[in-house]
Amino acid sequence: MAEPERIAIVGMGLIGGSLALGLRRARPTLRIIGVDLDERTREQALEARAVDAATSLQDAALEVCDGVVLCTPAAALLEMLPGVSARMRPGALLTDVCGAKERICQEGARQDRVVFVGAHPMAGTEYRGFSAANPALFHGCTVALCPATGAKDPSAQRSALELVREIWTAVGAEKLLEVDPAVHDRAVTFASHLPYLAAASIVESLLSAGGDSLLARELAAGGFRDTTRLAGDGTVGGAAALNRFIPEAARALAGRIRALADQLEQDPSAALEKLVRLADERRRMRMPAVAAAGTTPLVAPLRSR
Amino acid sequence: MAEPERIAIVGMGLIGGSLALGLRRARPTLRIIGVDLDERTREQALEARAVDAATSLQDAALEVCDGVVLCTPAAALLEMLPGVSARMRPGALLTDVCGAKERICQEGARQDRVVFVGAHPMAGTEYRGFSAANPALFHGCTVALCPATGAKDPSAQRSALELVREIWTAVGAEKLLEVDPAVHDRAVTFASHLPYLAAASIVESLLSAGGDSLLARELAAGGFRDTTRLAGDGTVGGAAALNRFIPEAARALAGRIRALADQLEQDPSAALEKLVRLADERRRMRMPAVAAAGTTPLVAPLRSR
Repeated sequence: MAEPERIAIVGMGLIGGSLALGLRRARPTLRIIGVDLDERTREQALEARAVDAATSLQDAALEVCDGVVLCTPAAALLEMLPGVSARMRPGALLTDVCGAKERICQEGARQDRVVFVGAHPMAGTEYRGFSAANPALFHGCTVALCPATGAKDPSAQRSALELVREIWTAVGAEKLLEVDPAVHDRAVTFASHLPYLAAASIVESLLSAGGDSLLARELAAGGFRDTTRLAGDGTVGGAAALNRFIPEAARALAGRIRALADQLEQDPSAALEKLVRLADERRRMRMPAVAAAGTTPLVAPLRSR
Repeated sequence: MAEPERIAIVGMGLIGGSLALGLRRARPTLRIIGVDLDERTREQALEARAVDAATSLQDAALEVCDGVVLCTPAAALLEMLPGVSARMRPGALLTDVCGAKERICQEGARQDRVVFVGAHPMAGTEYRGFSAANPALFHGCTVALCPATGAKDPSAQRSALELVREIWTAVGAEKLLEVDPAVHDRAVTFASHLPYLAAASIVESLLSAGGDSLLARELAAGGFRDTTRLAGDGTVGGAAALNRFIPEAARALAGRIRALADQLEQDPSAALEKLVRLADERRRMRMPAVAAAGTTPLVAPLRSR
């Protein structure tokens, strides 16, 4: 595969900025156009040499790009997708990083000028903006990919998929998983969106605790910090709002918590038995190691696929 | 205050074991009796020189101790409290580490042979047993104290409170907060018990996801890991079961999650606005730093009070 020569990254926040920094290190000859509506962010990206050029979306030379990666929040991403694809070179790659894939991939499939391949890197932090961007953010992470289906040009489709795989492999992703968009959304419901909504609701509980809230904050230890850390990443909410599996799953979670409350009252030993079993299951789960961005090797080797 | 000469620690798991190791370092002349029903645990504690003697509860020379610290799971603690106090030297200190204080302190106040002072160190990990014990576990932590009220002997009461403060200060606690047991329990409802029950319920959701569960685990990133870490600590459940504020608070949390699910369906922009506000609030919360046990200084200075 020929190396891509030019790509545009739209949205230079934590994810887009980290992608630009990671690609810059791994592919020094690649030309990267950074697109952001915030002038200060564009300046920061240029100063950090994350991008070769930084522009607004209106001024971006999308037509010269081999690939465009949409890294804006979910709602904006859905809105800009048709306009962006219409300005791109026919057959080029359009991709994204949104945490919900079904609605985005449907929108991507409504045109056949470019090849839309949905992508979702399983990485992030609760910090936001280009100033939190880190070239090692995606090192070792898993990326879910939703290849285009039924497009007219199989060769363009193949090239687009190769290019998106090349992009994520270059920045250090360890595993690229091709999944159906709906299957992806059902899985992230449990892996990410429910934990996020629960974390946000616990923060809301604490804020509503009135006079107890100050002492509660004094007494909050690592357990509260970790359980609610995800609530600080407001961008997950945008993806959760696009995930059609969320309302039912969240109501089921609410039902589980209510049932546990009732059981703690009526049959505490059965409740404790269940909690101990869940604790054992949780400890047995193979979980990704604590992110050690900054200490992980910053080399992002091109892997053979 | 004279240094204590002998204390017994009942239950040599993560908390009891860490307390023994920390006291051993800070107070080399203190004699520590380690009590555990598991013979292998007693051997481990002796091998690690955490204790001077290790026995079963039945064989422990409680009558020679200036203080006894109960570090067993909540239900066992409540059950053994009367029998332990009856065997102790009159006027000595009996204390504990349970995460719920009202029921335990009520039980402690049902005798006046010894002075019961409730304590709750805000520290822990998801790992269990003496093999996870760490002399620095309490370094920098906050300890909630519930002093005895209405006991007959004010001087014994004063000495007991001084001794329990000495114990926690010696192992590095940074802040000792005297609180009413019910006020404590309301505060930990939000700081600890609700986050724990939500984490356990999210683990249960994932386990119940059937065919989606394997992909969900593949896609689980740091967010899931952190949100559910607390669920691995089954001992929190025992304390939550003794906390009379839990059922109502957990049902309110379930209501919040259900309302959020409904709002995401019916008025997603209002839901997102709320989630962004909660994310801002969460980021503004002063949270304890990531526990760096093993890298923190292991010196536990005696602070003047």
